[in-house]
Amino acid sequence: MSPVGAAQIAAVEGYLQRLQAVLCAALEDADGAARFRSDRWTRPAGGGGDTRILEGGATFERAGVGMSAVSGDRLPPSASKLRPELAGRSWRAFGVSLVLHPQNPYVPTAHCNVRFFIAEAPGSDAVWWFGGGFDLTPYYGFDDDARHWHTVAREAAGEHYAGMKRACDEYFFLPHRNEPRGIGGLFFDDFTRGGFDAAFASVKRIGDAFVSAYLPIVRKRKATPYGERERNFQLYRRGRYVEFNLVHDRGTLFGLQSGGRTESILMSLPPLTAWRYDWKPQPGSPEAALYERYLVPRDWLADAP
Amino acid sequence: MSPVGAAQIAAVEGYLQRLQAVLCAALEDADGAARFRSDRWTRPAGGGGDTRILEGGATFERAGVGMSAVSGDRLPPSASKLRPELAGRSWRAFGVSLVLHPQNPYVPTAHCNVRFFIAEAPGSDAVWWFGGGFDLTPYYGFDDDARHWHTVAREAAGEHYAGMKRACDEYFFLPHRNEPRGIGGLFFDDFTRGGFDAAFASVKRIGDAFVSAYLPIVRKRKATPYGERERNFQLYRRGRYVEFNLVHDRGTLFGLQSGGRTESILMSLPPLTAWRYDWKPQPGSPEAALYERYLVPRDWLADAP
Repeated sequence: MSPVGAAQIAAVEGYLQRLQAVLCAALEDADGAARFRSDRWTRPAGGGGDTRILEGGATFERAGVGMSAVSGDRLPPSASKLRPELAGRSWRAFGVSLVLHPQNPYVPTAHCNVRFFIAEAPGSDAVWWFGGGFDLTPYYGFDDDARHWHTVAREAAGEHYAGMKRACDEYFFLPHRNEPRGIGGLFFDDFTRGGFDAAFASVKRIGDAFVSAYLPIVRKRKATPYGERERNFQLYRRGRYVEFNLVHDRGTLFGLQSGGRTESILMSLPPLTAWRYDWKPQPGSPEAALYERYLVPRDWLADAP
Repeated sequence: MSPVGAAQIAAVEGYLQRLQAVLCAALEDADGAARFRSDRWTRPAGGGGDTRILEGGATFERAGVGMSAVSGDRLPPSASKLRPELAGRSWRAFGVSLVLHPQNPYVPTAHCNVRFFIAEAPGSDAVWWFGGGFDLTPYYGFDDDARHWHTVAREAAGEHYAGMKRACDEYFFLPHRNEPRGIGGLFFDDFTRGGFDAAFASVKRIGDAFVSAYLPIVRKRKATPYGERERNFQLYRRGRYVEFNLVHDRGTLFGLQSGGRTESILMSLPPLTAWRYDWKPQPGSPEAALYERYLVPRDWLADAP
């Protein structure tokens, strides 16, 4: 593992700050009405962050883009699934996390995350890894959108696409519903491939690609007319997002259980959500098509060159 | 521990079936418009249940009263906190569970549960225990209501009130918010006090008391005029209910993780819920009073005879 020092850490932190700014600017532009407000916070146990939130926009009902740089004395075992032997080391974590809940049910919800961990012990090289990815959760499915999303994901991930796509399908899955959260994308954790410079370059390509993966879909769908039926389906499906994040998402649970900043962690939750007992879509409806065609692991680029 | 056999089990099961019927009849009467529908289900691994749901009523936006009788080959360690040595025994569980989400924000959300567990092993007496209780989650607090609720709870629980009230305050607590879920009530688990006959009698007094603890509050508050502000606060506070049930509630998590029937487990979730970033009530408002006076463990009967 290539050694990582102050210069590399500063480079990652600088990239994440720029990424947050770029994402917020692009999303404000796409929203066209509301602006992000910045909420800077410090963490009593070390570090802090800058949570940027846009609520009640023209395009986004709620958009959150958080940056955090936190540290601790003892790494919890859950932080590195592959290397539990690092538990107990002092650690630093840097991340940008984005969750977008659009107004229009034809615009999918999107999530993107880039994070960098360092575990340090006296007398040893620091151990580091990247994690992150992006995934898409449509309410109404469109093949064109799914192909576009995965095309950009494949361009960004390159040789890592197949593995990161499979990891995404595996991670964003609700066992109690036997349902994927959406149509997937990229997911990686404990990522060090090729040493720091190569891994960082891969991660930057993925972080930078989010805007071109998502915004064309937003522009294409945001003016689609919709009524109460589509809105109700959107609110109902958002319940699955809540269930995944609160029951399964490792980052959310680790954050809540380890004294993280609750409001920043739960900025991922939808602004309005409905549950209805044992609701099922009408056979043959567009709502049924979401389950049958889109909430199924699928190679969206099977026919693509 | 007094031995429990087929006659005792049948008595518990009969009581729970009657309790479900009594609760549904009383709640339909209080609602005045909608009726419960019954959804009977079977569990592939053994047993089944009857989930009764009322949605879109005049008083209740969503009311669920579920009965289940399920069994398994190997008791999971989480089922008995106090006696992990029972893990691996064959088990049977019987329960009635109720969650009420009223329309009017001045009517509190209520939860009631009575459950009975038996863990069996060849050549040993069956080990059994009761669990359950009831707790109240107001959106707007009223001292009269809190005193009435706890007065009925104390009458029902008798000598067990102080311990069950403390256990309720401890259990229904959201550490990531540093907030109780509501004003508490009664909670018990691994309850065998006095042997089967005495314990069952205590549990029946508590189950039977729910209607007289809750319905007078419903009748008193359900016609209170309210507007968008109160509705928004109700939707916002319901988010805490979701957070508790999905992040902390042992029964919910055990059910979801062990292949329970998802729709029956998640009938506890509110029909409509809102999250808003870092929202805080205006100082001096009735919403602030909820946090300051009611979401604080308190002896509501301190001055009562």
